[in-house]
Amino acid sequence: MRNPILIELTRGSLVESAHAGVVAVTRADGGLVAAVGDAQAPVFPRSAIKPLQALPFLETGAVQRFGLGPAEIAVACASHSGTPRHVGVVEGLLAKAGLTPAALGCGVHEPFDAAVAREMIRRGEQPTSLHHNCSGKHAAMLATAAHLGEPTDGYWLPDHPVQVRIRRVLEAMTGCSLSPQVCGIDGCSVPNWAMPPAALAGAFARFATGAGLTPQRAGDCARIFAACTACSDLVAGPGRFDTLIMQRLPGKVLVKTGAEGVYCGALRDAGLGFALKIEDGAKRASEAVAAHIIARFHPEAQEMAPDAVLRNWRGLDVGRVRATPELEAMLTASTAR
Amino acid sequence: MRNPILIELTRGSLVESAHAGVVAVTRADGGLVAAVGDAQAPVFPRSAIKPLQALPFLETGAVQRFGLGPAEIAVACASHSGTPRHVGVVEGLLAKAGLTPAALGCGVHEPFDAAVAREMIRRGEQPTSLHHNCSGKHAAMLATAAHLGEPTDGYWLPDHPVQVRIRRVLEAMTGCSLSPQVCGIDGCSVPNWAMPPAALAGAFARFATGAGLTPQRAGDCARIFAACTACSDLVAGPGRFDTLIMQRLPGKVLVKTGAEGVYCGALRDAGLGFALKIEDGAKRASEAVAAHIIARFHPEAQEMAPDAVLRNWRGLDVGRVRATPELEAMLTASTAR
Repeated sequence: MRNPILIELTRGSLVESAHAGVVAVTRADGGLVAAVGDAQAPVFPRSAIKPLQALPFLETGAVQRFGLGPAEIAVACASHSGTPRHVGVVEGLLAKAGLTPAALGCGVHEPFDAAVAREMIRRGEQPTSLHHNCSGKHAAMLATAAHLGEPTDGYWLPDHPVQVRIRRVLEAMTGCSLSPQVCGIDGCSVPNWAMPPAALAGAFARFATGAGLTPQRAGDCARIFAACTACSDLVAGPGRFDTLIMQRLPGKVLVKTGAEGVYCGALRDAGLGFALKIEDGAKRASEAVAAHIIARFHPEAQEMAPDAVLRNWRGLDVGRVRATPELEAMLTASTAR
Repeated sequence: MRNPILIELTRGSLVESAHAGVVAVTRADGGLVAAVGDAQAPVFPRSAIKPLQALPFLETGAVQRFGLGPAEIAVACASHSGTPRHVGVVEGLLAKAGLTPAALGCGVHEPFDAAVAREMIRRGEQPTSLHHNCSGKHAAMLATAAHLGEPTDGYWLPDHPVQVRIRRVLEAMTGCSLSPQVCGIDGCSVPNWAMPPAALAGAFARFATGAGLTPQRAGDCARIFAACTACSDLVAGPGRFDTLIMQRLPGKVLVKTGAEGVYCGALRDAGLGFALKIEDGAKRASEAVAAHIIARFHPEAQEMAPDAVLRNWRGLDVGRVRATPELEAMLTASTAR
């Protein structure tokens, strides 16, 4: 099955480019409220499931043991921008767990935040693994291993207890069976398992509502939800969509972007989760679709959902980013209850 | 019509992302040799037609009048990297025509070349319009206007003589009628007209062979072809695909990338042109398809045509970029004559 076109970019009076994809909007009981595209075909959720991957960090008692709070929980769920604030919270998390940045296995890239990256170049500073957008997740994995007396070396391998625990949590939250056949290696070297968007959306609905979860797990989900929405600057960074939308709708939505055009979110008041994947991996389309979904449930965030004007290097209006009728139909169905 | 998937990216044992698109391979007489997707639906060629847009620069006598040579012709066809060498050639072109960079209407962005951009940040230097990847094309447009005594102000507007001449050349080379209905504003603010890939490919075949052109136009096309292939470092820049493939096959192919996943090329020995557009605009896919086409005609460039390994931030092998059976079938058809 080919997924339908969801987002079009126009230039002049013609469509220049188009992005196909799949979206699922699901209740906590797993019921599919609305979908467009093949919501049962597995997709790699990449970083969009970091809030779920953070559950063992709380459930094992690591957060409590090391005296950690909302900031450290939020950065554990982050694809952060590598600002001094992000780096400081990650370094603090590691230090409180008796660890150093040398234990991080995520790799190194320049900070996502362009201004911070420029300032580092200006000063002649090299990025470290702390600047990697996944360093908070890795620090939480390391702290969990340290808390339980497990080896910290190799914590990124699929058969390390840290990753086995995460796989079991993901299976419980999504209802999926995660075999090696659906396992890939993520950009930051930890395992990532492909799952249907419908199941991912259901997991986010359960995450936001606690429905069907044990009281302890529901409580830990609520703590993560509260930490990410309260410290939304730590989950992404200045000017980024995830941070802006969570600031615009405080405590109402948890959203998380992932590489290759994936996006997951929880709409707490509606009791729904959503998951989407743009077939070609384009962030410009995944964020546009996420904005349309959220604005349908929260009209006060309408200004973040384009029909956006495309401008060129001189600021001239050259075209539009717009939702297709197929996406509009799914949006209408999602609220027609 | 939906265009077929041409390029897939795998992670583990699954396809993670996919890019749909259209390709046409055409003879100089306009005969379509092979195609995949809707080769008759107009696409914006963007910067991929700069070698055609440069024709009036030669045909009006501007190049001869100002004593310009292959370097200035190549940079007029460039989406260049903004290195000191590119900036120097563009500035020299303007100076020889009695103009200054203040006349450029392309806008400003940082150099595409990451090392040059870093060095400028380190030194606290701001980019200028000379660093814009299209500054050479704009300088050639300005020089043409100056040569003919036309106003240089507003040279980017569709009804300025500079743009009218370019439109007529494009119509003659492609056989298309370019009405305002298919006109968009390009990233650098000049008009860009949507044309079918089959027609664009035919224009590049005529460009490389001279077939069906007047002797003067055929000669000017040959001069542009020779300039771009001899000075391929000026057409793009260090490490970029256009430059690398023209260096690998000296004098045999002219290739030109455009924004939003467009690619045009001329295969001189085969007497063919090709044009392609990735539906979602992804350069990673347009370059992969171009590499596959060129390698089919020039096996000595096979190493530039992946099945490429995808590596993550730690250098681990996480997946592949590969051609689909639909693209493979088109490639086979293109050489089965």
